[in-house]
Amino acid sequence: MLSSEPRIILVHDSDNVAIVVNEGGLKVGTQLPNGIVLTDDVPEGHKLALCNLEQGAAVVRYGEIIGYTKRPIVQGGWINEHDVELPSPPALADIQLATKLVEPQAPIEGITFKGYRNPDGSVGTKNLLGITTSVHCVAGVVDHLVKIIEDKLLPNYPNVDGVIGLNHLYGCGVAINAPASVVPIRSIHNLALNPNFGGEVMVVSLGCEKLTPEKLLQGTSDTQVINIAEENIIQMQNEGFNGFQAMVDQMLVIAEKHLQKLNQRVREDCPISELVLGLQCGGSDAFSGVTANPAVGVAADMFVRAGATVMFSEVTEVRDAVHLLGPRCETKEVGERLKEEMAWYDNYLSMGQTDRRENPSPGNKKGGLANVVEKALGSIAKSGSSNIVEVLSPGQRPTKKGLIYAATPASDFVCGTQQVCSGINVQLFTTGRGTPYGLKAVPVIKVGTRTSLAKRWFDLIDIDAGQVATGKKDLQEMGLEIFEFVIRVASGEHITNSDRWGLFNQLAVFNPAPIT
Amino acid sequence: MLSSEPRIILVHDSDNVAIVVNEGGLKVGTQLPNGIVLTDDVPEGHKLALCNLEQGAAVVRYGEIIGYTKRPIVQGGWINEHDVELPSPPALADIQLATKLVEPQAPIEGITFKGYRNPDGSVGTKNLLGITTSVHCVAGVVDHLVKIIEDKLLPNYPNVDGVIGLNHLYGCGVAINAPASVVPIRSIHNLALNPNFGGEVMVVSLGCEKLTPEKLLQGTSDTQVINIAEENIIQMQNEGFNGFQAMVDQMLVIAEKHLQKLNQRVREDCPISELVLGLQCGGSDAFSGVTANPAVGVAADMFVRAGATVMFSEVTEVRDAVHLLGPRCETKEVGERLKEEMAWYDNYLSMGQTDRRENPSPGNKKGGLANVVEKALGSIAKSGSSNIVEVLSPGQRPTKKGLIYAATPASDFVCGTQQVCSGINVQLFTTGRGTPYGLKAVPVIKVGTRTSLAKRWFDLIDIDAGQVATGKKDLQEMGLEIFEFVIRVASGEHITNSDRWGLFNQLAVFNPAPIT
Repeated sequence: MLSSEPRIILVHDSDNVAIVVNEGGLKVGTQLPNGIVLTDDVPEGHKLALCNLEQGAAVVRYGEIIGYTKRPIVQGGWINEHDVELPSPPALADIQLATKLVEPQAPIEGITFKGYRNPDGSVGTKNLLGITTSVHCVAGVVDHLVKIIEDKLLPNYPNVDGVIGLNHLYGCGVAINAPASVVPIRSIHNLALNPNFGGEVMVVSLGCEKLTPEKLLQGTSDTQVINIAEENIIQMQNEGFNGFQAMVDQMLVIAEKHLQKLNQRVREDCPISELVLGLQCGGSDAFSGVTANPAVGVAADMFVRAGATVMFSEVTEVRDAVHLLGPRCETKEVGERLKEEMAWYDNYLSMGQTDRRENPSPGNKKGGLANVVEKALGSIAKSGSSNIVEVLSPGQRPTKKGLIYAATPASDFVCGTQQVCSGINVQLFTTGRGTPYGLKAVPVIKVGTRTSLAKRWFDLIDIDAGQVATGKKDLQEMGLEIFEFVIRVASGEHITNSDRWGLFNQLAVFNPAPIT
Repeated sequence: MLSSEPRIILVHDSDNVAIVVNEGGLKVGTQLPNGIVLTDDVPEGHKLALCNLEQGAAVVRYGEIIGYTKRPIVQGGWINEHDVELPSPPALADIQLATKLVEPQAPIEGITFKGYRNPDGSVGTKNLLGITTSVHCVAGVVDHLVKIIEDKLLPNYPNVDGVIGLNHLYGCGVAINAPASVVPIRSIHNLALNPNFGGEVMVVSLGCEKLTPEKLLQGTSDTQVINIAEENIIQMQNEGFNGFQAMVDQMLVIAEKHLQKLNQRVREDCPISELVLGLQCGGSDAFSGVTANPAVGVAADMFVRAGATVMFSEVTEVRDAVHLLGPRCETKEVGERLKEEMAWYDNYLSMGQTDRRENPSPGNKKGGLANVVEKALGSIAKSGSSNIVEVLSPGQRPTKKGLIYAATPASDFVCGTQQVCSGINVQLFTTGRGTPYGLKAVPVIKVGTRTSLAKRWFDLIDIDAGQVATGKKDLQEMGLEIFEFVIRVASGEHITNSDRWGLFNQLAVFNPAPIT
């Protein structure tokens, strides 16, 4: 059995700590394969010292200093979050840019997936009617509308996968001219353009809101204007409506026009280069950085080689590893954009009188992560080894293919929403502690970091990357499995657990500006 | 016919502007009953000059200066939002406190409503199962759970009015130690205690979130601890669960126990003093301050006389009228609390590099409101004439009965949510432009400011306060009608339009702290 034999994972040759693999942890006195005897009980996923560490010694994992010991720790001793002093974050001014670039690997050619080709050239992995809303005031109405469409109309349109109200808490009662308001406006604008909505844009509006449909469709200085026929905009306060039922009837007429067009679409073979893959982690543990995230990184490299777009995100969870990302930026300009996004977030947190220490969560710590540095080093493993070709502000759409850093909060549901705004059509989500997170707009594939989680959550976790820790698969095999799994899901040949149960988080558009 | 005769409204003897009542507005050349001839077309709800105004002259409405003319305006001319220079907000240091107190009016006694009496003495106007969530990660699961409860369980519990997932975007991925985080934590905590949930608290949690169930139930320094049996807290990451279905099954077991208890409740006669009435306006126009809001103010005075609790809110929409509220605070201490809340919000907006000018909305302006001063003067009319006995920070619960100022954002859905957190069991919502706003947790009674809106939105607006403008009813009659309507709704004898259609906004807990 797996748990009978003591097993630890060392990430980098220079590391002076390793993590315990065995479910249930290892007891004091256990002799490890390398001869070290544990001097403490060490829980699963938690770190043990590989040598004696003086007080103030550097704790090294992933070949990087994750902090300094607060007390002397003997070889074989347990090191948890209370034992490690958090170092300062890398100073942005010192970050090297574009200094460690890799030669492109051999392209992967000839692989396709079955997607819905859109008029603008993008490809959907679902065929959804997305109903854009200009203001949260209409959210209840749109929920009502969605229910009617699902019950009455959808049965007549078998090729349409569903309908989604693009609700948000924005649009009015907000500081619409505050500098930071560009984020939600851009995001809501670009949300309507997600490839999974097939370019069929309709807007439900109230009429007195600050984010008028015109403003929403115009977007921000960095977005393309959305041109739609006026009839696709329904304003509830329009004086032509006599009562609520008349409004709903008109919304249904418009919705049905879009359903008719969506229903004519069928999946066709599309090159993998049309995939826009979002990467995210949530409920991380110490295994995230050695199983699920690097396996996803292998898959990410393959997608980049196949010409696809791959986005990773979560500012507070890369901030402490940004000295490793700067050198991977393809040009200094891209690197400067990365530093800008980091600086923006530093300032945003500091205005709220807080900082990156608010991360990690209690569950992360329970899972063995001592601090945000260790979390960040594990987090960026998702990005693989490709050069970073572009950096996006929250909600921006990529202009390039390849590996892209899309700055977003690390909060799962906010990051997920923002990646949908940035145009992902499928998402890989790694989790150590487990979360039921899902999005209606795009398929979310949940990759578990530990076999014990994948077994216990057999109907929620889609892929068990814990097999890397137990030695059942190596990272390359796991990465290939993930690569192929993504293609099956994008093709509609495999339904993710969250889609099967219908477990979807609300859209949570990022609004860093005040509300009024 | 109403519209055939030119009609204007003057609020205060010293006003030098009045607003046009007629639907469709009045044309240039129209002679008004006071002899003035219009020198411009003036739209419905918009202001006309009652005398010649020099450039820089004070524009006076409600007996208060709402701004200064940017150009000379002749008698009978139209004054819109472009013509009025916004004055500075009242300096908080100069606000008089507790200097204009009124003697209590004669109590209204012996009136009751039919409510659900709770163990803690509070009274519900609905009999709902509220499912508290510690983190948004579980929102999709709770939506799934609610659907099953509605389909399978509720039919067996006919006395239970419904089930509501108390979802929010908080709980993790947030700066939980930032000073402002006290607002969402307190709010989510107090939300569980709303009288309409009958004291039956159950919590669905993930397990790795920052807002642990313990922290949620503990609350903040100003809340009472919620003591519930451990079995009422379901953690999805609990290792005892084998798969998602097992989690849902356990949630259903717990939910059913609460449903059994809720189902035993019946409405009983309760004194009106157990009502906690929230007041709010949204989509305001120039009529708000002369029809719906003052009529609600008359009703508010009656509820105060009957010993009930009446809350008004919306910081940015009272800020410019705070010099009228300070003197009405029952003590200087209460007044200082009012100033504190105003100062907090001034600072919150200023950190976002914005200010109160972000209000009003385009629809407000179209409806005749020139600026936030005019909006605020109309807004506070809802509060009637009683002394203000307590001031609450966002999400706090009142400790007194009578007229209370509960500081919240003005955003409809955020203010509504925060008032639910503060324990309202019914809400009066006035609207000029019209909004479909509704809350599942408490009945929302929508009062329209204009008859034309009430007619056109006959199945969304519950009460037509426009009758005051047309002269069909005076404010006292209208106030009495509202008072009696609230009692019927609170008693379950009248179903509001939003409840009848099932039009509900999402809960939108106020989180002024950064997300991470």
